Amino acid sequence: MTRQKFIDQLLKGSRRKPGTRGEAFAPANIALCKYWGKRDAELNLPANSSLSISLGKLGTRTVVKFAKNADRIFLNGKPAPKAFTRRVLAYLDLFRKKGQFFEVRTKNNIPTATGLASSASGFAALIQALNELMGWKLRPRELSMLARLGSGSAARSLYDGFAVWHAGQRPDGMDSYAEAVDSAWPALRIGILEVSAARKEPGSTEGMNRTRETSELYQAWPAQAACDFDELRAAIAAKDFPMFGKTAENNAMAMHATMLAAWPPLCYWKPRSLALMQKVWEVREYGFELYFTMDAGPNLKLLFLENDARTVRKLFPKVQIVTPFPKA
Amino acid sequence: MTRQKFIDQLLKGSRRKPGTRGEAFAPANIALCKYWGKRDAELNLPANSSLSISLGKLGTRTVVKFAKNADRIFLNGKPAPKAFTRRVLAYLDLFRKKGQFFEVRTKNNIPTATGLASSASGFAALIQALNELMGWKLRPRELSMLARLGSGSAARSLYDGFAVWHAGQRPDGMDSYAEAVDSAWPALRIGILEVSAARKEPGSTEGMNRTRETSELYQAWPAQAACDFDELRAAIAAKDFPMFGKTAENNAMAMHATMLAAWPPLCYWKPRSLALMQKVWEVREYGFELYFTMDAGPNLKLLFLENDARTVRKLFPKVQIVTPFPKA
Repeated sequence: MTRQKFIDQLLKGSRRKPGTRGEAFAPANIALCKYWGKRDAELNLPANSSLSISLGKLGTRTVVKFAKNADRIFLNGKPAPKAFTRRVLAYLDLFRKKGQFFEVRTKNNIPTATGLASSASGFAALIQALNELMGWKLRPRELSMLARLGSGSAARSLYDGFAVWHAGQRPDGMDSYAEAVDSAWPALRIGILEVSAARKEPGSTEGMNRTRETSELYQAWPAQAACDFDELRAAIAAKDFPMFGKTAENNAMAMHATMLAAWPPLCYWKPRSLALMQKVWEVREYGFELYFTMDAGPNLKLLFLENDARTVRKLFPKVQIVTPFPKA
Repeated sequence: MTRQKFIDQLLKGSRRKPGTRGEAFAPANIALCKYWGKRDAELNLPANSSLSISLGKLGTRTVVKFAKNADRIFLNGKPAPKAFTRRVLAYLDLFRKKGQFFEVRTKNNIPTATGLASSASGFAALIQALNELMGWKLRPRELSMLARLGSGSAARSLYDGFAVWHAGQRPDGMDSYAEAVDSAWPALRIGILEVSAARKEPGSTEGMNRTRETSELYQAWPAQAACDFDELRAAIAAKDFPMFGKTAENNAMAMHATMLAAWPPLCYWKPRSLALMQKVWEVREYGFELYFTMDAGPNLKLLFLENDARTVRKLFPKVQIVTPFPKA
């Protein structure tokens, strides 16, 4: 099935009364059970279900309007860089009618130094703003399926708190949507340890494909991810932090392990990443409940509870602490 | 089956005319298709077949005699350290009659700074020296099965050049022996890059067990190892260096990947190991035919051909180059 047919099907029943303006905010999210490998490249369907936590007020705000004669794309108040513009235009092409142009104004409040992906919050904010502008009145579940076409992990950025993105099984992708997990965990903290803010090389899609095609160990990944997904849901429901931290860290390590066993070997770590990982393992040997997760990049995201924040700051003076469930 | 029964069975048909002295040399070996995981702990039977290259004149020379009243164990001319002595005595216990004592004099010519395992060459030399002293007249195949009881990889140190250790399938372990691969490759070079000479922690046996018990990805390891084993044999027969290097490196990376996905995570690398690995990957992107392998430790063993030795020395000034097929 093509993207266009998929979109037509999703929009079939929706209203199409365009307004004049759409605006939305979407939070960044960090996967605790990772999305790693596609079962369908055209529809961006994942090989495994994933689970994430959104970063509260850290994310992307986007305003979309119709424009005359030409598209205009702004990022943080300035004309957007070429690569960014190209990716947004390719996405808008999926939805525009002939002769229709857009003005998109996007602002990220994620410090770029954190190395946090902004494509997830970016496409989640954009599709919600488009939903308003175009008057589709689609629900979050359907919007998550459209966001997925821009960036897989964007499906999970439709929600605050914990979110799951179901892999689904249908070839038409209609059962691969994200939804919120109805559990708040106010004591949870995320500590971002920046190792490098440089753009990761290769990108996630190429990394996934190389791993899936060349890494023997990848064969064991979907089963592990399925198991971790269930354990994380159980740990969240029970607020069992050791089980939560262990499962998230092991899931990240297994994902990176499948990459290291690819050919050519795929390693997003820097020597300093490894030093920080080993520091976490060392303090944990002394009984300190500290875990981490890592995406396809060199930075660590520490997982710990509120009460340990002071110690974490002492151990890692440069840590940036995020509160994923901020008080209203 | 117990070790004792296994040994009785192997020695059943052998002569038992003790001499007065046994002496033997055994080379160190580096696994190119790794032994990682046991199918039987008591008999030290591996989960997968492995393939190694011996390091020519680098190894262990051991002299064994009978002693009066008490065992005497020497290492490099001095009374051996406690841990070494304990391990050798536990091994000798498998073969001694009541009231029988031994004097063992062992010398390693492997620079300890290389971080190369000496237990493989150590047990291979010891069992050959015992074979002479005890007058068993066992063949290398049987000796490899006895050496295995001291240290799995010792089975492969019975031979010069390439050696294979068959995993076998029988519960009694009688089909798990090592033999030589009849192929010389005089142009082959091994470059040892020392990162740390400190004793690895945890030891291989504990590392294997933790990986086998907790790493989901380990499930894919035996199949990968079986495939790498065949590809390495084919690459050696065809003197196909790129295939040889690629398969050996990928096998080592996959082994380490299974450990990283264990719980708690098992990482024998130091940050500097990763920096060296990335340097190899970088120069290979420029077309330079350089690969590496790593055991359960932080050091790299580079694989390259004679003609590239000068460049390797320039890239890695501290490299120690070994010629596994020295001229006679």
